[in-house]
Amino acid sequence: MTGRLIDGRAIAAALRAELADRVAAAPVRPCLAIVVPTADEGAAWYVRQLSRTAERLGIECRVVGPPVGADELVDRLAELSADDTVHGVLCQTPLPAGVTPVQAGSAIDVAKDVDGANPRSAGLLAAGASAYPPATAAAVLHLLRAEGVELAGRNAVVVGRSTVVGKPAATLLLAEQATVTVCHSRTRDLAEHTRRADVLVAAVGRAGLLGAEHVAPGAVVVDVGTNPTPDGGLTGDVRTDEVVDVAAAVTPVPGGVGPVTTATLLSHVVHAAGV
Amino acid sequence: MTGRLIDGRAIAAALRAELADRVAAAPVRPCLAIVVPTADEGAAWYVRQLSRTAERLGIECRVVGPPVGADELVDRLAELSADDTVHGVLCQTPLPAGVTPVQAGSAIDVAKDVDGANPRSAGLLAAGASAYPPATAAAVLHLLRAEGVELAGRNAVVVGRSTVVGKPAATLLLAEQATVTVCHSRTRDLAEHTRRADVLVAAVGRAGLLGAEHVAPGAVVVDVGTNPTPDGGLTGDVRTDEVVDVAAAVTPVPGGVGPVTTATLLSHVVHAAGV
Repeated sequence: MTGRLIDGRAIAAALRAELADRVAAAPVRPCLAIVVPTADEGAAWYVRQLSRTAERLGIECRVVGPPVGADELVDRLAELSADDTVHGVLCQTPLPAGVTPVQAGSAIDVAKDVDGANPRSAGLLAAGASAYPPATAAAVLHLLRAEGVELAGRNAVVVGRSTVVGKPAATLLLAEQATVTVCHSRTRDLAEHTRRADVLVAAVGRAGLLGAEHVAPGAVVVDVGTNPTPDGGLTGDVRTDEVVDVAAAVTPVPGGVGPVTTATLLSHVVHAAGV
Repeated sequence: MTGRLIDGRAIAAALRAELADRVAAAPVRPCLAIVVPTADEGAAWYVRQLSRTAERLGIECRVVGPPVGADELVDRLAELSADDTVHGVLCQTPLPAGVTPVQAGSAIDVAKDVDGANPRSAGLLAAGASAYPPATAAAVLHLLRAEGVELAGRNAVVVGRSTVVGKPAATLLLAEQATVTVCHSRTRDLAEHTRRADVLVAAVGRAGLLGAEHVAPGAVVVDVGTNPTPDGGLTGDVRTDEVVDVAAAVTPVPGGVGPVTTATLLSHVVHAAGV
């Protein structure tokens, strides 16, 4: 093993400690409202874990639902956006049938859109204006900054073009002056592209898609994949055991992007509260 | 000369003819409102030319200003957006001091935002939802479609990352299933990237930046540059005379993207009128 595993848990812990200090010193207690429209095991687990982490940092967490029906979801998100005691609003997936991500996201005020779900937030970011990116994309950038990875003028390759990760990660990398390539399922000769990456972001949702043959010596690899394993665990899009022998550094799954995403989301809430 | 010059004037004429037919058969006359905030020679020339073209196609053109002061610009754009007799709203640059492109664009209703100036339009496009892209970026795609250029799985390289051309062109190319790389002033070894392009879009605003050494044999090159020449003419970002010997096809400047942009903008107005 020549490369290094990036310790996402430690990076998340450092960010949480900083947030806890800021919140402790603030005159206002930041408040995140999480709307959970549907009863879903994965969503429930995530919301519990997010709430616990928030409370430990002194951030109030107000959970609405489940259920919140398709007919009232947009109204509830708009009400929470208009509530002066709420600083951040998050709509948990999965959404109920009949509501699109664009409809739900558009109901969240941009100033409280801490997970970048409103299309206006995405457009503002692309225009270089101020808005919150989706927490996962922001976490990718936070990891790279925490690791001291230079981005200006470097080649960044993002595999995956989802609205919640691939595209916003590309936007953020471009804002950091990287030359950015977005690859996806229709890309011909994926390895030819990824082998040119100084920074490789895997966000495609296919377990073990990227191996040693996809990575240039010395690259930094961020694995956003969270694919369920038969034994109830998680595995990434990257074959970490192979890639760590080629790359300079790689984020493991679990313990990489995941914990940093939660901490980054809460950093957006703290920011939205003006803390 | 082994490559071919793409005839933007002919492609624009074909689109205009189609629009004129649709408008002639429609029960409603499409109406474009153009707000011209500042007295500027280039803007005045462009608005005159756009108005004339629109009128020839049976599209009403309502020009407001100049001047429209910074204090009233947002209100005027919002009023026109709320006016049922107006189908498209365009805010001509340059903007007056004190108004940002985001502020002006945000005042235009997305359904009438025929030049994709509202950040919400950009975010909707990135999310795969329906919205108008900036006319120049849409014109690049129209040219490629008109020329029968295959995009799915091909390598597209966009040089330039402006909010009005580079970024939306990248979004549109990605939606067409191309693998997309965005290069810019901080890109190291530009030619190494551009030589891998099946489709190369130059939108950087530097006269003659890209020459034969930047282009792969057989590539299709779209030159969005409109750089003024000392003799009062225009020249592109591409050294067309060299590149045409390498590329399969290249758009000239003038006579390439420019006329198609005007026709594409008017096609958005016709579409917004439901025609």
